[in-house]
Amino acid sequence: MKAGGQEDGSPWDECFEAAVQLARRAGQIIRKALTEEKHVSTKTSAADLVTETDRLVEDLIVSELRKQFPSHRFIAEEATAAGAKCELTSSPTWIIDPIDGTCNFVHRFPDVAVSIGFAVQRELEFGVVHHCMEERLYTARRGRGAFCNGQRLCVSGETDLSKALILTEIGAKRDPATLRLFLGNMEQLLLAKAHGVRVIGSSTLALCHLAAGAADAYYQFGLHCWDLAAATVIIREAGGIVMDTTGGPLDLMSRRVVAAGTRKMATLIAQALQPISYGRDDVW
Amino acid sequence: MKAGGQEDGSPWDECFEAAVQLARRAGQIIRKALTEEKHVSTKTSAADLVTETDRLVEDLIVSELRKQFPSHRFIAEEATAAGAKCELTSSPTWIIDPIDGTCNFVHRFPDVAVSIGFAVQRELEFGVVHHCMEERLYTARRGRGAFCNGQRLCVSGETDLSKALILTEIGAKRDPATLRLFLGNMEQLLLAKAHGVRVIGSSTLALCHLAAGAADAYYQFGLHCWDLAAATVIIREAGGIVMDTTGGPLDLMSRRVVAAGTRKMATLIAQALQPISYGRDDVW
Repeated sequence: MKAGGQEDGSPWDECFEAAVQLARRAGQIIRKALTEEKHVSTKTSAADLVTETDRLVEDLIVSELRKQFPSHRFIAEEATAAGAKCELTSSPTWIIDPIDGTCNFVHRFPDVAVSIGFAVQRELEFGVVHHCMEERLYTARRGRGAFCNGQRLCVSGETDLSKALILTEIGAKRDPATLRLFLGNMEQLLLAKAHGVRVIGSSTLALCHLAAGAADAYYQFGLHCWDLAAATVIIREAGGIVMDTTGGPLDLMSRRVVAAGTRKMATLIAQALQPISYGRDDVW
Repeated sequence: MKAGGQEDGSPWDECFEAAVQLARRAGQIIRKALTEEKHVSTKTSAADLVTETDRLVEDLIVSELRKQFPSHRFIAEEATAAGAKCELTSSPTWIIDPIDGTCNFVHRFPDVAVSIGFAVQRELEFGVVHHCMEERLYTARRGRGAFCNGQRLCVSGETDLSKALILTEIGAKRDPATLRLFLGNMEQLLLAKAHGVRVIGSSTLALCHLAAGAADAYYQFGLHCWDLAAATVIIREAGGIVMDTTGGPLDLMSRRVVAAGTRKMATLIAQALQPISYGRDDVW
């Protein structure tokens, strides 16, 4: 049987299988690199690090997919940093983060993942996330459920903020005003008696924890579409909600998100947050 | 060969082996419990949760050790919460956290550990920490190095705060003044351009990440001696520093700590922090 779904001749079966194989291969490369010395160059800030492995892994994934699916389009982290347009059209589009948790990777902190999402007609079709160090493979296809190493995932049903474990990430902007907003949002949730806030350094893996029911909510300002695309399918197929911080529908390019096991929890989180402006992925 | 050290007839060999066996047994129980429904009662705050498994695991560890070592003393989380004195004398003393990361455990967030430390003449002799979900066993004995699943651990040599990955925990006190101090400390470190701050919900495992060189520093106000005892030996034997937030020597009962791969890094962190008062473990 193929990973995470039955065979029924869907037009995207082949794409999904390619994503699973490439996520596994990329994971092996990353795991190996984590035991070797790394050369690091800075991108926009110290927290936003680029490594040779990041580029190597993205090149591998994109070149293999291009060979198999020459008509498809690609949105990928390193290509975008190098100036490629980040545009979601109606064409079949791969949305790729070769190493989610780059700062973790640089420090050998183990929460590091490969994230491969796939959209058709601007709708997310499947997502594959591979936790490189723990060899956990998260997969979901639209309408077919979400899985981790073959085990079905289900979100938490929590609706009470005072019983919630909440995940977030700091984001790359570290100017005093942005930091104050970031910390003010955390303060609001802790004053509302949330059980706890966790910051693990990988948006994609945090969202997968949410899909697995290991946390009740996630929010972030400043993440990118490639941090979010694959995990959004996984959360939705695990029964959860992914939406805009305004309470409206998710806009993959808006660089802001609230996700939760229930709509009520997502709405409570969204209402507690002060927005942090990061611009859009598709404006350049 | 025995776990994490050669045989040389040390008087504490038998104690160390008992700790390793019990940490593994406890880990199995916790792993099993994480797949079952949990009944939770509140202790001092919503973030400081007690579960049946917490008590069950502590009873198992303490009763087995008492049988083998009837003259030894015990400091353990649940017994202390139930009113037992938390006193480190010159007698051989076991310092035990049956489930470090109780809030994570309640939410099935996977960073959960068993922590068993051992002190003689008020000096820490060995530490055993078991990451229950990933079956990673961290061990260290004084003068014999630190290991994770048999692999030697070595701290990071980083001395530059602007290149540091820093770990901390929120602590159980959530009143507005305490939260403001907690968030103010995080702000100081991010304004100093630290690469990132991580909050994983388990002090013991965060300290083990530091010992493994996966992070450069750790600080916390509000932790307890049982969160710290085992991991302190592991960090020291991995070449790191564990000290008081004032810059002075570690006081296991003071409920505050800075740890780092280098003394310079530990000192920089200590200088950046505003103290948060949590009282002492040994004043009741």
